[in-house]
Amino acid sequence: MEKKLIYLALVHYPVLNRHGELITSAITNLDIHDIARLARTYDLPAYYLVTPLSDQQVLARSLIDHWLEGVGGDINPDRREAMGLIRIAEDIKKVCSEIILETGRSVLVYVTTAKKCPNYVNWSGLRKKIEDQGRESILLLFGTASGFDNSVLENADGVIFPIEGNREYNHLPVRSAVAITLDRLLGDRN
Amino acid sequence: MEKKLIYLALVHYPVLNRHGELITSAITNLDIHDIARLARTYDLPAYYLVTPLSDQQVLARSLIDHWLEGVGGDINPDRREAMGLIRIAEDIKKVCSEIILETGRSVLVYVTTAKKCPNYVNWSGLRKKIEDQGRESILLLFGTASGFDNSVLENADGVIFPIEGNREYNHLPVRSAVAITLDRLLGDRN
Repeated sequence: MEKKLIYLALVHYPVLNRHGELITSAITNLDIHDIARLARTYDLPAYYLVTPLSDQQVLARSLIDHWLEGVGGDINPDRREAMGLIRIAEDIKKVCSEIILETGRSVLVYVTTAKKCPNYVNWSGLRKKIEDQGRESILLLFGTASGFDNSVLENADGVIFPIEGNREYNHLPVRSAVAITLDRLLGDRN
Repeated sequence: MEKKLIYLALVHYPVLNRHGELITSAITNLDIHDIARLARTYDLPAYYLVTPLSDQQVLARSLIDHWLEGVGGDINPDRREAMGLIRIAEDIKKVCSEIILETGRSVLVYVTTAKKCPNYVNWSGLRKKIEDQGRESILLLFGTASGFDNSVLENADGVIFPIEGNREYNHLPVRSAVAITLDRLLGDRN
């Protein structure tokens, strides 16, 4: 299957805690694994972990290297393949510049959120954009903790309509949101 | 939103390990939480944990009760609401008889798998069946470990076409498979 130029980033700053305060969230081993397997399933070229904290970057690197270089990947080569897609970056801007450098294309940034925003992009519209993909790469941003700080939404090219937009309960784990998002945008519809 | 009579069960026996041997897998706290939140999001009436081991049933019960009766649910009422959907059963047959008793309808059992089976049901067909839902309830079975023993597939009313059926990499976590399955069958398509 042809690789679309769609990248994914899991963002640990700037995000909010449940009181709406700006924080840097901690990386979690589980999100690293589950989202890497999803990125591999849907043929993404890379999955970025974004954190400005150097000790968290070092921790993430060691968790990943266990699978790339250690015994984990020998026992479970499928996991190695998924973990090999992960890249670590200090901020969203750095992710964008790396993608531009790699692809030679500009990048459109789309943000996922559980909150409704006034100027959202709907799913069929974004799916169509991907199918017609022209000169731009696409970067999908997912927030951890209680979601993105407003600055991220304001600086994005688009905010995607919430997965649970027409439902009363909107408390999905971010790894579930990634699964559903990739499938809505790239999944088969047979 | 009207509740469809679609139930979900996460099955820990009879499943296979990576060598193809019949085992009972252990319950995992993470699958309990993530899948409960998904069940709540997509308005399922219940989410069954299936294990024949009584010590595992007791463990599951105590993990759930922490949220239903303990301090966890006071701090996080959304989680309590999700965890309240979980029921524990000793086998698939027991799940079916409980659903029949509750709904007064017969139940059709559909199995999810990462392997292709000769007589699969495709997604649009099953989605249509749900939309036209008549006199039957539907039970979706998800296997843990390396997937179901063949006996489960043979006794089901249908085996759903694999999520990754047209892809080369089929190593999704079961909680991702649940997310994608519920969204494909019950999600909004705007």
